[in-house]
Amino acid sequence: MNYMDAFNWRYATKRMSGSAVPEDKVRRVCEAGRLAPSSFGLQPYALVTVRDAQQKLRLFEGPAPQPQVTECSHLLVLATRITIDDQLVDDFIQLTANVRGLSMGDLHGYSRAIKGTLDGFESVAAKREWARSQAYIAMGFILAAAALEAVDATPMEGFDPDALDEMLGLKEQGLHSVALVALGYRDEARDHVARAAKVRWPKSVFMPEIAVPADVSKTVRPCERSKGEKP
Amino acid sequence: MNYMDAFNWRYATKRMSGSAVPEDKVRRVCEAGRLAPSSFGLQPYALVTVRDAQQKLRLFEGPAPQPQVTECSHLLVLATRITIDDQLVDDFIQLTANVRGLSMGDLHGYSRAIKGTLDGFESVAAKREWARSQAYIAMGFILAAAALEAVDATPMEGFDPDALDEMLGLKEQGLHSVALVALGYRDEARDHVARAAKVRWPKSVFMPEIAVPADVSKTVRPCERSKGEKP
Repeated sequence: MNYMDAFNWRYATKRMSGSAVPEDKVRRVCEAGRLAPSSFGLQPYALVTVRDAQQKLRLFEGPAPQPQVTECSHLLVLATRITIDDQLVDDFIQLTANVRGLSMGDLHGYSRAIKGTLDGFESVAAKREWARSQAYIAMGFILAAAALEAVDATPMEGFDPDALDEMLGLKEQGLHSVALVALGYRDEARDHVARAAKVRWPKSVFMPEIAVPADVSKTVRPCERSKGEKP
Repeated sequence: MNYMDAFNWRYATKRMSGSAVPEDKVRRVCEAGRLAPSSFGLQPYALVTVRDAQQKLRLFEGPAPQPQVTECSHLLVLATRITIDDQLVDDFIQLTANVRGLSMGDLHGYSRAIKGTLDGFESVAAKREWARSQAYIAMGFILAAAALEAVDATPMEGFDPDALDEMLGLKEQGLHSVALVALGYRDEARDHVARAAKVRWPKSVFMPEIAVPADVSKTVRPCERSKGEKP
């Protein structure tokens, strides 16, 4: 299946069969999330995997009452770091130095640029939202990879993040949940949207044309101007 | 190239060669963004393509001074809808009804659920950030697709969104830019990170283990408990 077919095939599965997704597929899907890019490469997020049936049941009965939570094979919890500060940047710079065989001094300007950007947020909430957006790029990679593995995946936001954090002990790990991705296999018999057509804005809405300013088109492509048109 | 190799191959290209990316590849990359999932499927974002060399130059000389802006083949502007209100929901429900052959009445509950969620945001800023996160899933799909097409892509946030909106007339289209993706081909000779190792948090950081509560593990997997361990 080429990737375009895979992206058309996937949908936010409403009911899953409970069948297990092989661990090697899950590993690659998670690795795709790890490889996703982020602003400055800082990756201010993490991915927690829930496999245990009883733990999924407790989540379903509490903070995340969607059927996919128990019917999935693996429940991935995408979480952002609660503290995004100079220490995290220093750790990241150290990691970069180690991986690339550089000194901390080589990366001083880079470190200052990241810290300056973090200082520029007008509030803690704004920084947290920025981190969430970064995590959502990783979610895109995870969902794309799942489709390429022919594994169904459902991204979900409608849960109680504080209660879920509490139940999984995420706060103690310095993490705050922002989204869930259930991995599993669609149950076509019970899923009322399994065969429904995909709904997307048409290209005319999703990809609006923008005008090239007249003075610009005159400069760049005068030969393309039709003869009857006034300059 | 399998997708894992492609995701390892890609990086946020710093310098591009100016070579053109074939239109069919760009079309598929953009289509991947269109196919990306979003909360409720509402897709409160759009994608604007800048191809014109003079327009790219004006952006480079103004709101987006990164070299990739002129060196890329196509500059994609990811933008969120400024107004995310009941009218947008009604339009989306109408679209859904048309695509799936349903009546508006069939979708009444769905419409109410979306409108209720939109009403629940504590501020316009919070709703805008939510829309930005949705757009970043699409960015993930776009970057993943570019890698699968062996096209280089650079996601960029460090630009002046208001000035860019003004220059491209986005506000008149009801859009506000949130991120750029330059599509093109790496210039390995000039790009100092073209051959640098990818820097990612190790799995131990990206994928922390969470404890399965003791009472749960006792219930589910008593046979897995080693004999020397106390219950």
